[in-house]
Amino acid sequence: MRLYLGLVHFPVYNKNRDTIASAVTTLDIHDISRLARTYGSKGFFVITPLKDQKRLVERIREHWTEGYGGLYNPDRKEALELVHLVDTVEYAREEITKIEGERPVLLATDASKGVGRTIGYKEARNLLEKNRPVCLCFGTAWGLHRSVLEAADYVLEPVYGPTEYNHLSVRAAASIIVDRLVGR
Amino acid sequence: MRLYLGLVHFPVYNKNRDTIASAVTTLDIHDISRLARTYGSKGFFVITPLKDQKRLVERIREHWTEGYGGLYNPDRKEALELVHLVDTVEYAREEITKIEGERPVLLATDASKGVGRTIGYKEARNLLEKNRPVCLCFGTAWGLHRSVLEAADYVLEPVYGPTEYNHLSVRAAASIIVDRLVGR
Repeated sequence: MRLYLGLVHFPVYNKNRDTIASAVTTLDIHDISRLARTYGSKGFFVITPLKDQKRLVERIREHWTEGYGGLYNPDRKEALELVHLVDTVEYAREEITKIEGERPVLLATDASKGVGRTIGYKEARNLLEKNRPVCLCFGTAWGLHRSVLEAADYVLEPVYGPTEYNHLSVRAAASIIVDRLVGR
Repeated sequence: MRLYLGLVHFPVYNKNRDTIASAVTTLDIHDISRLARTYGSKGFFVITPLKDQKRLVERIREHWTEGYGGLYNPDRKEALELVHLVDTVEYAREEITKIEGERPVLLATDASKGVGRTIGYKEARNLLEKNRPVCLCFGTAWGLHRSVLEAADYVLEPVYGPTEYNHLSVRAAASIIVDRLVGR
């Protein structure tokens, strides 16, 4: 199973649908790296071109993998070791291509319906079962910029429960989606 | 569907398996109330007997349901309106009994195997489909105290991906479990 996760901080939308670079939420780094480790994902790309935000992620990663955090909580170390830090989604794809010797399928996620090239969970699960490398990207703030959706090979269908409300946090949506794609 | 969620801050374990009351993580309140709203849960009980922690939860709830937050983000208001604040798991059960006219099934969650009275996801889904009121409880920190597991009617089987590592955050575990129980 060659699944990589990507958490995109730029380009994403804000509430008014302006294009922004969002700030890193430290809990996202913890939650999604623990998710990645639990589900056997091969890497978790934190995607931001902002230098101060990159430094923040590096500090978290170092504390838990090389510093006191790793001694205090070895489980967290195993999770945070999966974190890669890159400027753009394209760089994440290139890094995965280097590791896997094959360009990964870019699978974007969006909370809206009908953004085009939509793929269901069963179909996306098949890609992984056929051993295709997959880069599954989540948007922070108000979601992935259109340019990322357009660059993607597929856009996964939104997560809905039994209601029409689907304002989940990125941490919750990522957890549900990864479980649907690779859960037992 | 009569599902209620409970987030337990006491009694839970710390890393050394002492019994503690954990501090409220504000993001848990947001993430799990949004999860509850998305999946049609009828209420989300934040369970803590600590006065300062209750005040914190009340302040968050008021900001988003009555204060500026509700105007700024009405979706968040709909989610936070589901929050109830109680001292103990037993009080949550009593409040649900008052609402539903029937004592709810207490369904506890635990990341360990073999704690007894284990129930699978399919079986738990059946309870909801038969319209039984269910109070699904999650532990913060290092998990629900044994006394809560013993008081429960059933303990849900742990969430595993394809690996033996299962150190998910409570936000992630709650998301995955609720999706497995009521997701489309």
